[in-house]
Amino acid sequence: MTTETIDSFHRGQFHVIQPLGQGHRSGMDAMLLASLVASDKPCRVADLGAGAGAAGMAVASRLANAQVLLVERSPLMADFARKSVALPENARFGTRISVLEADVSLTGRARVAAGLADDAFDHVIMNPPFNDASDRKTPDALKAEAHAMTDGLFDTWIRTAGAIMKPGGQLSLIARPESIADIISACGRRFGGIEITSLHPRTGENAVRILVTAIKQSRARLALRAPLIMHEDDTHKFAAVVDDLNNGRAAYRRRR
Amino acid sequence: MTTETIDSFHRGQFHVIQPLGQGHRSGMDAMLLASLVASDKPCRVADLGAGAGAAGMAVASRLANAQVLLVERSPLMADFARKSVALPENARFGTRISVLEADVSLTGRARVAAGLADDAFDHVIMNPPFNDASDRKTPDALKAEAHAMTDGLFDTWIRTAGAIMKPGGQLSLIARPESIADIISACGRRFGGIEITSLHPRTGENAVRILVTAIKQSRARLALRAPLIMHEDDTHKFAAVVDDLNNGRAAYRRRR
Repeated sequence: MTTETIDSFHRGQFHVIQPLGQGHRSGMDAMLLASLVASDKPCRVADLGAGAGAAGMAVASRLANAQVLLVERSPLMADFARKSVALPENARFGTRISVLEADVSLTGRARVAAGLADDAFDHVIMNPPFNDASDRKTPDALKAEAHAMTDGLFDTWIRTAGAIMKPGGQLSLIARPESIADIISACGRRFGGIEITSLHPRTGENAVRILVTAIKQSRARLALRAPLIMHEDDTHKFAAVVDDLNNGRAAYRRRR
Repeated sequence: MTTETIDSFHRGQFHVIQPLGQGHRSGMDAMLLASLVASDKPCRVADLGAGAGAAGMAVASRLANAQVLLVERSPLMADFARKSVALPENARFGTRISVLEADVSLTGRARVAAGLADDAFDHVIMNPPFNDASDRKTPDALKAEAHAMTDGLFDTWIRTAGAIMKPGGQLSLIARPESIADIISACGRRFGGIEITSLHPRTGENAVRILVTAIKQSRARLALRAPLIMHEDDTHKFAAVVDDLNNGRAAYRRRR
């Protein structure tokens, strides 16, 4: 038996069906990731490793001209994504989303044959499995798969992102701070203009996440942007800017 | 003819003789670098690529138990370092500083023969030549040498730092944000517990420098610390914490 929940995002603007107690459960990470896509024009967006689809759905919900492809390897999670998209509550944008059951790590003809064509997307977003082996607290196999950090994972995922993205397209991802060098290295010569924003729970505290965007074939330099502070005072309330990003009221735009 | 200046640091606590119009001139970068050394116990400190010696002298001036070796390849700059150390104004700590004319990129026996023994230092600090080729604005050859970023520079310098440092010793450096991945990659398995702090001119602006410390043979994870903001308001005054670091009134301690 699989127990599931229906979770509300963007203050009720859309809903996602997720398995309870197994698989990765989407939350604020997915919403912040989605906030990195800022295009008002018609655009094609791929969400790699989409899980139940929260990040990709957040993009489609906020951007009326976005066509979103949710790419997920796990048949179970892809099913949840399809069910989520089909919810009546999501009818406003559901027709602009499709689900592709495919492995992000495929390459060359196998990738194209699986449905991921070259130079097809304006935006690729990803929230890759980023817990490393030393931090695995979850015996559950599906969750372990979603959270398992393996050597070269960023390289593999970012290589696929580079292949399926149009020149000038934008890569967006959210990750742990300790992955920063792997990510920059994986961007290599495929991407430039890397912009990194660290996310800190409170003033004076270490970062818990980094938000990264980069442009395919750009030669611009890396920038470390001003950090985002989740709680600006001693309360549990989010800072206004973070709350807006989390609830789909604003995009976190690149500086250039 | 070489024109020189005598510059006051730490609000007159020590002075450095520097060439005017040629060579790298030390300033705030060197003071922030020096602030990363926080030991009150007797310790040996190597300043790699010391130039006229500002960073190493700032450490010796602030820490009464530090013995500092200034390592500089350029005979001209090493001369300035020796002259600076010998200034009567620096007599308070001058006997705790020595100057070694040697190339940081030497390896193995050649390095040891040049005066840089294995496992000898508690702290190694460096402000490596970090302007990259696309940003070179200075025709002057000596300055170009001090600012010339070459592929693998961080790897070479950090390898030397790892070799001459005691196990558990601390590496400290200041660099540009775009070097972050090269630095982390160069730390590799030699160093762990990397702590990175970005330095931003004002709230909301991109970082202009990163301060990095790491511990030899540590396995601890990388941390992105809360950033330092140089100017907290619209004035030209430094924020109190930055002013204290710049003027030798405080150390910027590691969090662990």
